[in-house]
Amino acid sequence: MSYRYGIFIYNQVAALDFVGPSDTFAISNQLVGGGSVITIASNTSPITCSSGMRVTPDYSFADVPELDVLLIPGTEGVDALLEMNDAVEWVRSRASEVKYLTSVCTGALLLQKAGLLANRKATTHWMLTEALASDPSIELLAEMRYVRDGNIVTSQGVSAGIDMALWLVGQLHSPDHARQVRKILQYDPAPPYGAEV
Amino acid sequence: MSYRYGIFIYNQVAALDFVGPSDTFAISNQLVGGGSVITIASNTSPITCSSGMRVTPDYSFADVPELDVLLIPGTEGVDALLEMNDAVEWVRSRASEVKYLTSVCTGALLLQKAGLLANRKATTHWMLTEALASDPSIELLAEMRYVRDGNIVTSQGVSAGIDMALWLVGQLHSPDHARQVRKILQYDPAPPYGAEV
Repeated sequence: MSYRYGIFIYNQVAALDFVGPSDTFAISNQLVGGGSVITIASNTSPITCSSGMRVTPDYSFADVPELDVLLIPGTEGVDALLEMNDAVEWVRSRASEVKYLTSVCTGALLLQKAGLLANRKATTHWMLTEALASDPSIELLAEMRYVRDGNIVTSQGVSAGIDMALWLVGQLHSPDHARQVRKILQYDPAPPYGAEV
Repeated sequence: MSYRYGIFIYNQVAALDFVGPSDTFAISNQLVGGGSVITIASNTSPITCSSGMRVTPDYSFADVPELDVLLIPGTEGVDALLEMNDAVEWVRSRASEVKYLTSVCTGALLLQKAGLLANRKATTHWMLTEALASDPSIELLAEMRYVRDGNIVTSQGVSAGIDMALWLVGQLHSPDHARQVRKILQYDPAPPYGAEV
């Protein structure tokens, strides 16, 4: 069985937040045959990621087909993201339709604004944990790479989206399937220069 | 000091091969102030990545400014990549100009075709190691996450580009700088489901 994965994109989105997961999903679909990974925005005009990369969305909110998984990536421009009322409304409207609603990095703040994290466990990028924790109904699990609560999965910053997406395709298919995807991604990470500052 | 990083993109390129490094480079530039990360293709028409994502290149081969670093990402469509004679010629023409010429995944095969890996150590995606090793002048180091020989740095498949790019910004700036970039990427990988198949 293959799935349709929808990726919300917008100006100043962090590209790696969504490309890590989208390539994971695309390889998963390729292994099982079928499915698709589509990008979605307010409208189909090109958007510019924080790195400067320009991406043309496949669908606008108005014409998105039914989705199995929806992913909300993050940005350093959280204030601008949270002012996108059409996005907040659209994500809220799709939350119960999808098998999994997922966020990477500061994308969790949009889920919070849409009221979808109330009384749930969640995580986000380390820089924004206080913002998320300011909502007393959210149980922040800042040290977790990703957190699943019901059909909502939030993950830590940027690269954490890869770990989350691998976990997700393992849930949708099987752990062995996820291991095959991981092997194709050659995801045997070896960060250089030792411990973090 | 900030740098101009050029990313070669083309139809059927694996998005994560170049977005891992390009976001790493962009955050590095942001920390030091200045610089840019630009995408480059045969012409500036949009290209479609293997996941379906559509990216509009910033520059064509004809109008690329001077680069400090050039990155060649990979694809499953290696045959089509190696038939892009204009790309092979262009990469060869830029090889001595740049501080570092880098590849991710099967991008190494383009460097090989351009004659740039002769008598060098190199690596690539595990599926293509035999193709690279068929050139007897190349010393294949298949188990290395990334391999530096002179000003050329080749890396293993897909996600290995993140490790390579972090190493690179550590060389261009300092190990502590690379650790700061890593912290912003929150690159503390934790692949799920244990050992590979």
